Amino acid sequence: MKTINIDLGKRSYPIYVGENLIRDSALIQKHIASKNIVIVTNSTIAPLYLDTIVDTLGDEKNIIPIILPDGEQFKNLETLNTIYDALLKNKCDRDIVLVALGGGVIGDITGYAAASYMRGVKFIQIPTSLLAQVDSSVGGKTGINHALGKNMIGAFHQPQCVIIDVSVLDTLPDKELSAGLAEVIKYGLIRDYAFFEWLEINLPNLLNKNSTYLIKAIIKSCMNKAEVVTQDEFESSKGIRATLNLGHTFGHAIENAMGYGSWLHGEAVACGMVMAAFLSKELSWLTDKEFKRITNIFLSAKLPINPPEISQKKFIDLMNSDKKTKNNQINLVLQKGIGKVILTNDYPKKVLLATLKQKNFLND
Amino acid sequence: MKTINIDLGKRSYPIYVGENLIRDSALIQKHIASKNIVIVTNSTIAPLYLDTIVDTLGDEKNIIPIILPDGEQFKNLETLNTIYDALLKNKCDRDIVLVALGGGVIGDITGYAAASYMRGVKFIQIPTSLLAQVDSSVGGKTGINHALGKNMIGAFHQPQCVIIDVSVLDTLPDKELSAGLAEVIKYGLIRDYAFFEWLEINLPNLLNKNSTYLIKAIIKSCMNKAEVVTQDEFESSKGIRATLNLGHTFGHAIENAMGYGSWLHGEAVACGMVMAAFLSKELSWLTDKEFKRITNIFLSAKLPINPPEISQKKFIDLMNSDKKTKNNQINLVLQKGIGKVILTNDYPKKVLLATLKQKNFLND
Repeated sequence: MKTINIDLGKRSYPIYVGENLIRDSALIQKHIASKNIVIVTNSTIAPLYLDTIVDTLGDEKNIIPIILPDGEQFKNLETLNTIYDALLKNKCDRDIVLVALGGGVIGDITGYAAASYMRGVKFIQIPTSLLAQVDSSVGGKTGINHALGKNMIGAFHQPQCVIIDVSVLDTLPDKELSAGLAEVIKYGLIRDYAFFEWLEINLPNLLNKNSTYLIKAIIKSCMNKAEVVTQDEFESSKGIRATLNLGHTFGHAIENAMGYGSWLHGEAVACGMVMAAFLSKELSWLTDKEFKRITNIFLSAKLPINPPEISQKKFIDLMNSDKKTKNNQINLVLQKGIGKVILTNDYPKKVLLATLKQKNFLND
Repeated sequence: MKTINIDLGKRSYPIYVGENLIRDSALIQKHIASKNIVIVTNSTIAPLYLDTIVDTLGDEKNIIPIILPDGEQFKNLETLNTIYDALLKNKCDRDIVLVALGGGVIGDITGYAAASYMRGVKFIQIPTSLLAQVDSSVGGKTGINHALGKNMIGAFHQPQCVIIDVSVLDTLPDKELSAGLAEVIKYGLIRDYAFFEWLEINLPNLLNKNSTYLIKAIIKSCMNKAEVVTQDEFESSKGIRATLNLGHTFGHAIENAMGYGSWLHGEAVACGMVMAAFLSKELSWLTDKEFKRITNIFLSAKLPINPPEISQKKFIDLMNSDKKTKNNQINLVLQKGIGKVILTNDYPKKVLLATLKQKNFLND
């Protein structure tokens, strides 16, 4: 087992990465002092791992499971309220610990419930998807969607610890594994050229769920994200943390236009990263060859690189309502070669429009 | 105009207290750099002061008013969602500043909307009730109620500044002035005996809305609260901040049992403070004479001292679900003489039950 320490002063916490960690009683009990524990999970994960976690926690604990419906479309105020209802009906006090057992949706909504219940209680994360393991497990962003935009309501709230057990990826559908790889590749693109090269070679091992390679990719991803987040915990205007949003402004627009849950987040972001790369290439910030390597790596990871049918106007409207917008100028994270990005709104609008018009990036 | 600085490191902010401050353009504009401003107010306050604030902000600003229905019963998730709707429909970005123009309900819900919208935006408070001026303006507690308990959902989120204009109290109904005085008297009871004595003498001047006396009482109250809050911003288990909850566990149970909005918060808390004083007297922590002074000061302030008809069992149940509860032992703030309190759950349960049975504290 490897431990990554996320250094955020009083809010520091460890991330544990290894195999069979959800069966490690000593590890998990160490981080839960309270007698009462709420496990928030969903209808897909509960039959797979809920009993295991309950066993691991032991007989001494009073465990309250909350099983939510599975899907991004349920990451909303209504579902959040069902968590509050359960917490209050069970008379949970400020000593309660919430355990988020599931993918990004469960992590985000449980973290936000923990941030807002009685103005903040403790939570730990046990992410069960690759995406959640490499993305939402670091950084403390929690929240829910609103009909008018993704993650519009939320809080920064750091967990007590994150337990990343690669063994649970055995049951992860291939499509979701690929979606997780989108965020893994992102770290290579934004700040780690050597990791990008490693991924170009080792994607087949990751797609085959080889534990050794998965552990390496997860650790590299978490460490890259940790280095960014510890420099800029609350996403200040300096824009350091904003680089993590590569592909996200395009991606959020795709998710929103198609209806949450239709495209997986990782799929939409993969396509968004290709769009950002195309725009960068048009600005001569990326060579044709680099652009080709980027489209190729996403294709190898079995991710979509072409956007669905969305009108230019709708795309722009949705991008404008994304919270990365500042004073109505769309800020974008763009490539300056592979392994380096900048946050900018200083680009000709017609290049953005040309990008949105592009239907097939493979021919480019 | 007097300025009180609330010293919370990076989250420090000033409170301004004086007359006609809502007409002071220089003061108000200094704290709002953004072009876009959302003013959240209610249907009672809007006709009285919304135009004034809009004028004070000047023509350069783009002002979006959100007018909520008036009352504690609307401090809920549904009303909060109407604020999110308006923010998103108006494409408000992270630079938006929310102005809370109203009493405690408006301050709490607006502050919580600001805490949670896009994971946190700025807000300023212009409290229009005495209660809000002396209570919610200091400390950064924001939140909403849940059907199963008051203020169960919320966040700590400090404002940019608080503008306390005593002139707006001219339009405050007498009943609400008295409710505000309950919290003013509380500061005397918990930590400021000299202020308590001053209040015993000067209550008539406050009930007559004499500006000079109101300003003094507000400043004394805010400074007392600030001294407590700066020692314990996030209400840690040390219990320093918890002393501010004198009367609140009883009071919240009363408010909840009667239905939010039926008893004013200050009325319920006044009665709760008398109950806490009675319990303290039964434990010999307060003399009969001190208890009498406490009931008298609330009577002078035209506040209720006797609880409504609530069964003992229901009272206990509601107190148990209050978030001051820890591991199912009801923590109470109790008097140790006037001007000193302790947070404790070390009292015989039968004394609490005897307190809950008491119907008339005047005869005691």
